[in-house]
Amino acid sequence: MKKLINDPKNVVDEAVAGFEAAHGDIVVVSHDPIYIVRKDAPVAGKVGIVSGGGSGHEPLHGGFVGYGMLDAAVPGPVFTSPTPDPILAATKAVDSGAGVLHIVKNYTGDVLNFETAADLAAADDIEVRTVIVDDDVAVKDSLYTAGRRGVAGTVLVEKIAGAAAERGDDLDAVAAIATKVNSQVRTMGVALTPCVVPHAGEPSFTLADDEIEIGIGIHGEPGRERIKLEPADAIVDRLLAPILEDMPLASGDKVHLLVNGMGGTPQVELYIVFRHAAAVLAEKGVEVTRSLVGNFVTSLEMQGVSISVLKLDDELTALYDAPVQTAALRWGR
Amino acid sequence: MKKLINDPKNVVDEAVAGFEAAHGDIVVVSHDPIYIVRKDAPVAGKVGIVSGGGSGHEPLHGGFVGYGMLDAAVPGPVFTSPTPDPILAATKAVDSGAGVLHIVKNYTGDVLNFETAADLAAADDIEVRTVIVDDDVAVKDSLYTAGRRGVAGTVLVEKIAGAAAERGDDLDAVAAIATKVNSQVRTMGVALTPCVVPHAGEPSFTLADDEIEIGIGIHGEPGRERIKLEPADAIVDRLLAPILEDMPLASGDKVHLLVNGMGGTPQVELYIVFRHAAAVLAEKGVEVTRSLVGNFVTSLEMQGVSISVLKLDDELTALYDAPVQTAALRWGR
Repeated sequence: MKKLINDPKNVVDEAVAGFEAAHGDIVVVSHDPIYIVRKDAPVAGKVGIVSGGGSGHEPLHGGFVGYGMLDAAVPGPVFTSPTPDPILAATKAVDSGAGVLHIVKNYTGDVLNFETAADLAAADDIEVRTVIVDDDVAVKDSLYTAGRRGVAGTVLVEKIAGAAAERGDDLDAVAAIATKVNSQVRTMGVALTPCVVPHAGEPSFTLADDEIEIGIGIHGEPGRERIKLEPADAIVDRLLAPILEDMPLASGDKVHLLVNGMGGTPQVELYIVFRHAAAVLAEKGVEVTRSLVGNFVTSLEMQGVSISVLKLDDELTALYDAPVQTAALRWGR
Repeated sequence: MKKLINDPKNVVDEAVAGFEAAHGDIVVVSHDPIYIVRKDAPVAGKVGIVSGGGSGHEPLHGGFVGYGMLDAAVPGPVFTSPTPDPILAATKAVDSGAGVLHIVKNYTGDVLNFETAADLAAADDIEVRTVIVDDDVAVKDSLYTAGRRGVAGTVLVEKIAGAAAERGDDLDAVAAIATKVNSQVRTMGVALTPCVVPHAGEPSFTLADDEIEIGIGIHGEPGRERIKLEPADAIVDRLLAPILEDMPLASGDKVHLLVNGMGGTPQVELYIVFRHAAAVLAEKGVEVTRSLVGNFVTSLEMQGVSISVLKLDDELTALYDAPVQTAALRWGR
């Protein structure tokens, strides 16, 4: 294992300390328990939004804390859910009395721990709503999940719900927007290589030199099938087909197309993927009116990509376009 | 070789087409010859800024085309300089009569081809100045270079010179600012793994499982030494020492600290590096007042990092803070 780390057990602590040193203009970091909170939290009258989950998927979630997106992020150990303690502390830190939305990727550990934290917060008279993100069309009931997994679509849920909270929507309305985004986004990924969890020291799975895994999870969980490497365009077709089967789009529909690198993928490859995905959608008369290309929800150094398609309407588009000021996503302010 | 590509010879064409599809709000792409130009170019009365070089270092340079930074980028084949033709075409496309600055990384091919393009532009009555970037303290007179190589510091030269051009500085002044930034920035990198150039199909060099290369170039050119893997903090010390030896800093100095991923490095590792680099500088009384952490000047899927330190003053800080609106860097507008 070759990594730029010190003691494997300090990876998250040290990374979070570096994040704090780099982004002290946007966030404040609590070290015990560990969470990252917007510098101006709690924002008076605003619904707070908290997300979190295992580390190793950066910039998710800490990179999305700031104006117009998350109020707090709770990073667990690498690929392991944070416990209820820091989730509760983050929830308290962002509550201004308007209530708090938990955005939770659908993994058993995350769901349980956020639920416990929400119960404890309720006992402290903080109103909490929870929206579970489960955008991955690849598999149901996988290694870590009952139902579908939450993957790269989470970024779009966080961006759009964050904008709704920022404009002053109440807790029910912000939760409704988050639920709507989740219901209209679908994702499918592929891995070319595995990743190495620092405290494990070994690749999370193995793939032959000419093999790829279609439908990979963001922790290297098994996908749909292993196939021989194909040209990028053929792989993109394999990723888009189940997305469009699950969420049929009509000519004239407008979408956000997110091409997400898994962490170790060269940027030229992401744009090659984007090119063909946009062309396939265009052929169906579907217009890509918004897009993102880059590393947003990663799996450490895994090489691979996921494609997310979010069906847009005027409301979602306006919220997506609203200003955002975070470490990993910023525009318009 | 496992890559998300189609025919290796179409990598740059297809990536640029994807870039155009994703960022049509910011850029226009010429496909024959290939260059990427700001959508509103030429901007009346403004000095044009053109950069370029081999592909495979994305987001450099195309990701930095837009308001407040580059007017055009000229991507060559992977790790290979663009020819004078597209450089000349890009230079003409951005000239509004106020002249054009070429920002050129110090590699023999780039320097020659930009020089030829500048001569041809001069024959067309376009005034061109050239600033060579050579921020890499690792080696002199390497495989592709006479003198030092141009590496990640290029991003800071482009950002700050771009801001000077945007505020209306004339050609001499913009060139002087770019020269100043180059003179005050130093960079040193390390590789944990090699990268694979698509048309070669094989790793550009080999490193043993426990070996790293200190002072690596962005094309995998040899650095200063190969050593056994060490903890991140020790590696950071090895990168910072020659930077600070070459550009001594005094207590009270203010710097921009850029921790640049080589393409395949997990983001947690970049922040672990940032944490220690900032701490070492703080110990010397040097204040990190601006920073960037992420993939800016990459070597395809190489795992590794470079550290750049730019000595700031009020003028450079103000220009760095000025609004920028590009695919890869945006704030404040």
